[in-house]
Amino acid sequence: MIATLTDFGNSEYLGAMKGVIRSISFDADIIDLYNDVAPQSVRQAAWVLLSNYACFPKGALFLCIVDPGVGTDRKALAVQTKSYTFIAPDNGLIYPAAQKDGITSVISITIPKDASRTFHGRDIFAKAAAKLDSGHGIASLGKPAKTIQPLHFHKKGREGEVVRIDHFGNIITNLSCLPGEKRYAATLGKEKMNLPFYATYAEAKSDELFLIEGSARTLEISVKSGSAKQKLHPKIGEHIRIIGMQRGNIPGAEGGVLRGVFLKK
Amino acid sequence: MIATLTDFGNSEYLGAMKGVIRSISFDADIIDLYNDVAPQSVRQAAWVLLSNYACFPKGALFLCIVDPGVGTDRKALAVQTKSYTFIAPDNGLIYPAAQKDGITSVISITIPKDASRTFHGRDIFAKAAAKLDSGHGIASLGKPAKTIQPLHFHKKGREGEVVRIDHFGNIITNLSCLPGEKRYAATLGKEKMNLPFYATYAEAKSDELFLIEGSARTLEISVKSGSAKQKLHPKIGEHIRIIGMQRGNIPGAEGGVLRGVFLKK
Amino acid sequence: MIATLTDFGNSEYLGAMKGVIRSISFDADIIDLYNDVAPQSVRQAAWVLLSNYACFPKGALFLCIVDPGVGTDRKALAVQTKSYTFIAPDNGLIYPAAQKDGITSVISITIPKDASRTFHGRDIFAKAAAKLDSGHGIASLGKPAKTIQPLHFHKKGREGEVVRIDHFGNIITNLSCLPGEKRYAATLGKEKMNLPFYATYAEAKSDELFLIEGSARTLEISVKSGSAKQKLHPKIGEHIRIIGMQRGNIPGAEGGVLRGVFLKK
Repeated sequence: MIATLTDFGNSEYLGAMKGVIRSISFDADIIDLYNDVAPQSVRQAAWVLLSNYACFPKGALFLCIVDPGVGTDRKALAVQTKSYTFIAPDNGLIYPAAQKDGITSVISITIPKDASRTFHGRDIFAKAAAKLDSGHGIASLGKPAKTIQPLHFHKKGREGEVVRIDHFGNIITNLSCLPGEKRYAATLGKEKMNLPFYATYAEAKSDELFLIEGSARTLEISVKSGSAKQKLHPKIGEHIRIIGMQRGNIPGAEGGVLRGVFLKK
Repeated sequence: MIATLTDFGNSEYLGAMKGVIRSISFDADIIDLYNDVAPQSVRQAAWVLLSNYACFPKGALFLCIVDPGVGTDRKALAVQTKSYTFIAPDNGLIYPAAQKDGITSVISITIPKDASRTFHGRDIFAKAAAKLDSGHGIASLGKPAKTIQPLHFHKKGREGEVVRIDHFGNIITNLSCLPGEKRYAATLGKEKMNLPFYATYAEAKSDELFLIEGSARTLEISVKSGSAKQKLHPKIGEHIRIIGMQRGNIPGAEGGVLRGVFLKK
Repeated sequence: MIATLTDFGNSEYLGAMKGVIRSISFDADIIDLYNDVAPQSVRQAAWVLLSNYACFPKGALFLCIVDPGVGTDRKALAVQTKSYTFIAPDNGLIYPAAQKDGITSVISITIPKDASRTFHGRDIFAKAAAKLDSGHGIASLGKPAKTIQPLHFHKKGREGEVVRIDHFGNIITNLSCLPGEKRYAATLGKEKMNLPFYATYAEAKSDELFLIEGSARTLEISVKSGSAKQKLHPKIGEHIRIIGMQRGNIPGAEGGVLRGVFLKK
């Protein structure tokens, strides 16, 4: 099975890749993971992959194309991990997921000299995916690579980053919940907020900013029947600090002493 | 076959559900019915399902996730009808379609205590669909439910509602055409309109509001080479009255006596 | 295999067609080529088909629905070419691709009298595609057609047209690159531009308009980390002239004598 993750959005480029895959591996089974990554947002794609790859059956191949460096000398990678295969440009996109699953080998895919310099998704990566899907081993695609471009999401204590803004306008962070905590102080850019935590969307009041544990089991800023994105205008990768505010509830929680400093706007 | 109907839009949540389904039922055949329902518009999803389920082969399973009540105590349903299976939160979404096809059994799906409280699509509903797809019976998913949340589209004589606004800006109603009628009087909110009826889009003049029989065989307000939505700004569920205007053409047609009262803007 | 190309965008109409296909040909394998053609833009769809059909395996059937004339007496066509089958309304959409591959037979699909007059995609074309997919021959769909609606992209020397504006805002033309040329003079409407040519997106400066060889191996106007569409607001089908500017580099290149006339804005 081949799962696609691209920034091709509303374009024919995804369809062209599927055609190419099927021309090589006629019965390839292709599933769309997500193809509306913000154009060229390697970071957002990396988070989507990290937080969703494990939903897929073992043996799945992830074909990931967010490729601002297409046509330059950036490597084209095929990475084997403990349970999956990842094919992508070497720009960090697959690093967090592959690292988490456990990398076992990394191949630098051979790029033919006559390849187009603007659409490696179709001309290099789709063909490589189809070749593996039709039974070839990963080593047949090129030579072992000595390095892989890393990508780390910022995390230092209770400071993390905005890793994703979803279709509903939810602002997704890489920070975990503090068990039992009902109120948090959040700092995002110049914005300081005192936010309630709810277990479900239904508990929130309309138009109220609040925190919730999202589908990746991390904290998300949401607005019921609205869009947190439109209220806060965050950027992908922007740092965010979210600390608990209930003194005593969690021994040593950083938030306690700050009560009263953060103001709800 | 599993057909998806969700409000996940441009998000990875649909891809995650597909991954989960395939992890349980490896060769599950998944078709997208429609995944751009307006966020949380149970009503719009209910209409799309009602007017399209019968296009699918008998035996198809509809996995329907528009779920503003996720994480609350609203039930998760699996409904068997004469020819299909429907899986959805118990909020009315599947009621009109299931009722029309003929409900034979309703199961309240067991929700594990450790389920996430924000993404039952992935954690409850996709798993239930995959379990059925891989051969389990509906009774294996939980216990028989005693009730199901109804949802009725408003219809009283020639007054119905706006059930859907489509990609082209067509305003779709649940009112049928009057055979042979060439002109209608329509009341939508404060707007009173005298509208011609055309059999095809090609007959209309550019930029003109008109009525046509749409794909669900009900009346739609359209604009040729334009968007009726942008002219009239209707809301889903808003009541609309559309009566025939040709006196004598249809015995007892309500429209006749009103000729001259409605003004075309 | 059936590949879809439509202007249905974010609508349930594509899902309904897939349901209908599967009701007739239960294991039909359906791939989305592209379903976000601008509403009713036959011209744009024709280009997408022309520049992508050959990516698909031989024997593929293209189901193409951009159909402003639905319900009129325009023919419904099934066209057999050397390696593919095309099903579409007779409005030029499939002409360039079918012509290029080599037309071997053209059938006018019989339209039942009780067909809807607004959704032939579901009621005529999807059924025809499914019938062929399940093994019937093209002749079973109707009678041989004597004519087919042509569609030609404008091209006269170095003057061509804007054939497509993609998801990234790239303005795609049907003009080829001049080998070795590093600078072009382009005229688009009232806009006269002196544009550098780069082999890769990475070479361009941020926010700079430039030319690149796109995925169809034709010239595209691009902006790095931006949208050429938003800078130039071109229309599909608009004529564009792009000539080389390096005197002597290419013997007889038209651009040389004009150096100095075109001004970069």
